[in-house]
Amino acid sequence: MYTAIGYAAQSSTAPLAPMTFQRRALRADDVAIDILYCGVCHSDLHQARNEWGIAVYPLMPGHEIVGRVTAVGDKVGNYQVGDLVGVGCMVDSCRQCEACHKDLEQYCLEGPTMTYATPDRVDGSNTMGGYSSSIVVSEHFVLRMPQGLDLPSAAPILCAGITTYSPLKHHGVGPGHKVGVLGMGGLGHMGIKFAKALGAEVTVFTRSQAKAEEARRQGADQVIVSTDEAQMRAAAGRFDFLLDTIPVQHDLNPYLETLKFDGVHILVGLIEPIDPPVHAANLVLKRRVVAGSLIGGIAETQEVLDFCAEHGITCDIEMLDIRNINEAFERMHKGDVKYRFVIDMATLHA
Amino acid sequence: MYTAIGYAAQSSTAPLAPMTFQRRALRADDVAIDILYCGVCHSDLHQARNEWGIAVYPLMPGHEIVGRVTAVGDKVGNYQVGDLVGVGCMVDSCRQCEACHKDLEQYCLEGPTMTYATPDRVDGSNTMGGYSSSIVVSEHFVLRMPQGLDLPSAAPILCAGITTYSPLKHHGVGPGHKVGVLGMGGLGHMGIKFAKALGAEVTVFTRSQAKAEEARRQGADQVIVSTDEAQMRAAAGRFDFLLDTIPVQHDLNPYLETLKFDGVHILVGLIEPIDPPVHAANLVLKRRVVAGSLIGGIAETQEVLDFCAEHGITCDIEMLDIRNINEAFERMHKGDVKYRFVIDMATLHA
Repeated sequence: MYTAIGYAAQSSTAPLAPMTFQRRALRADDVAIDILYCGVCHSDLHQARNEWGIAVYPLMPGHEIVGRVTAVGDKVGNYQVGDLVGVGCMVDSCRQCEACHKDLEQYCLEGPTMTYATPDRVDGSNTMGGYSSSIVVSEHFVLRMPQGLDLPSAAPILCAGITTYSPLKHHGVGPGHKVGVLGMGGLGHMGIKFAKALGAEVTVFTRSQAKAEEARRQGADQVIVSTDEAQMRAAAGRFDFLLDTIPVQHDLNPYLETLKFDGVHILVGLIEPIDPPVHAANLVLKRRVVAGSLIGGIAETQEVLDFCAEHGITCDIEMLDIRNINEAFERMHKGDVKYRFVIDMATLHA
Repeated sequence: MYTAIGYAAQSSTAPLAPMTFQRRALRADDVAIDILYCGVCHSDLHQARNEWGIAVYPLMPGHEIVGRVTAVGDKVGNYQVGDLVGVGCMVDSCRQCEACHKDLEQYCLEGPTMTYATPDRVDGSNTMGGYSSSIVVSEHFVLRMPQGLDLPSAAPILCAGITTYSPLKHHGVGPGHKVGVLGMGGLGHMGIKFAKALGAEVTVFTRSQAKAEEARRQGADQVIVSTDEAQMRAAAGRFDFLLDTIPVQHDLNPYLETLKFDGVHILVGLIEPIDPPVHAANLVLKRRVVAGSLIGGIAETQEVLDFCAEHGITCDIEMLDIRNINEAFERMHKGDVKYRFVIDMATLHA
């Protein structure tokens, strides 16, 4: 067993606070990792406060983990002590179902084991995430950090990155396509970068003209102010794909009308009822599609890390002292971060 | 000009009644057709009563037309006098846009000219449908009736048939797939036949056990009573595709849960808001898709006619004397038809 320290919530109303706990002794396929950096995802806050009703306490968030290998189990073949590695949203799955065989562990028919707040498949213990000094993970769920990526800026690729990259790849986004990105937070700003790198023309939809310049700085070719009906009407039938990262309920219909026939509206941020409802005519009359997408499989997560290294893509981050995590949650809740907090885990020992 | 007779509504509250009118003189690319049979589609009733708010009066419905060529324009190359032909939902389109170039005239960027209640692109006159003795149509929008098809039973292929065939083909339905069909009316019973002929395993969802035997008679391998929660739960994650022909608002969520990951819920019957709303989690967590589809292009309509001839597929119909069209509308409104009324146009002259 490894004694570890981390920040956890003891209940849905408690702030995150330091906690000492045990990481399991290495199984044959396990990799032990000293954590260097961990991104702060909005779902960390939802889970800490049990806003999805599935939290298990103590709840130690964190699933954008970058660190260094400190030990490996007897049967580990791909990693050695000293390797720079990452861990994303999942740490296990059944590995036998149709989804797992297709490298789509996120859709595992038994349900994947998430990096935190899920029972471990072997011993049933509650998984603890990356707001901590170390983690022990089966090697299949460990990613290799490619050379040349700035490590803290790369950490959010493991969730915000793969979440936006995977659907763009799945739906075949490439040169000649017009892609609209809805929302410009942690996910949205990565979506802009990926859609551009894949060769598409990128338009950002934003509610305020004030964000237009920032959208262009992120690489957007055009900006549409979604509250301006004239601009929305002028965009009717323009887009092949919409990447919708908006995490709160919103009316999809005005956006659907900006899609061409056969256009695809991809939801990656919403996990509530689509209310106001989609008007079926907006789908039927133009053979449009509303699609969902959840993070990405492990092989594709490695692919996006390599893609980012090749294209020089990282996340725009603000480094965070873990002792300020509760203030960071408040700022994230207000949307006051560009675009991701990343915890410098050295501050855990400060 | 051709003097024609037909049944039309003079207002949204008037019953259909006989009317004499003029069909246009042949343009160079026109085919003149004596109508033998015309299917009765639920949209005919919606339009006659202006339930979609886009009716133009006098409104002469009918877009499942089978007849015989009586004259052709100077530049018509594909049809001769005496040929057995069909006309479906469209009689023209811009022929120049991206959709038209892809043989998807139904998604014409300028909007297709529908077979009735739409301004003709040349002279602006209100198009009149197939509840009539004859029609004049540009040859590009004329279909060839393949040998071996029973003509009256084939008429509904031109709308109910292509509407269900097109999305099954577009989404690649074939052997090894599990397809669920929602609703078993004119569209649904054709959907069962097509999905079976394409090699899929077909399950019909019905609200009552009483319809199970009829569903099996239509070719369904299995039946799920959708009001039985236990049966619905047992079907969780089973289907690759759902072909949803239900024309009224209904809750998609219990059906979505019966789809596998990457499953596709295809709407062909609904043109209202999807209320109750789809829960985004039902899409995001399993990469599922809600897709729409509208009839099919002209080339694909010819394809489905030929497919039906090859596979011996026709619509189950009840022959109708046009003098009883208003009673037929009432019966159709109550769902009291198996599965399509087809007007025997000889009764127009009786």
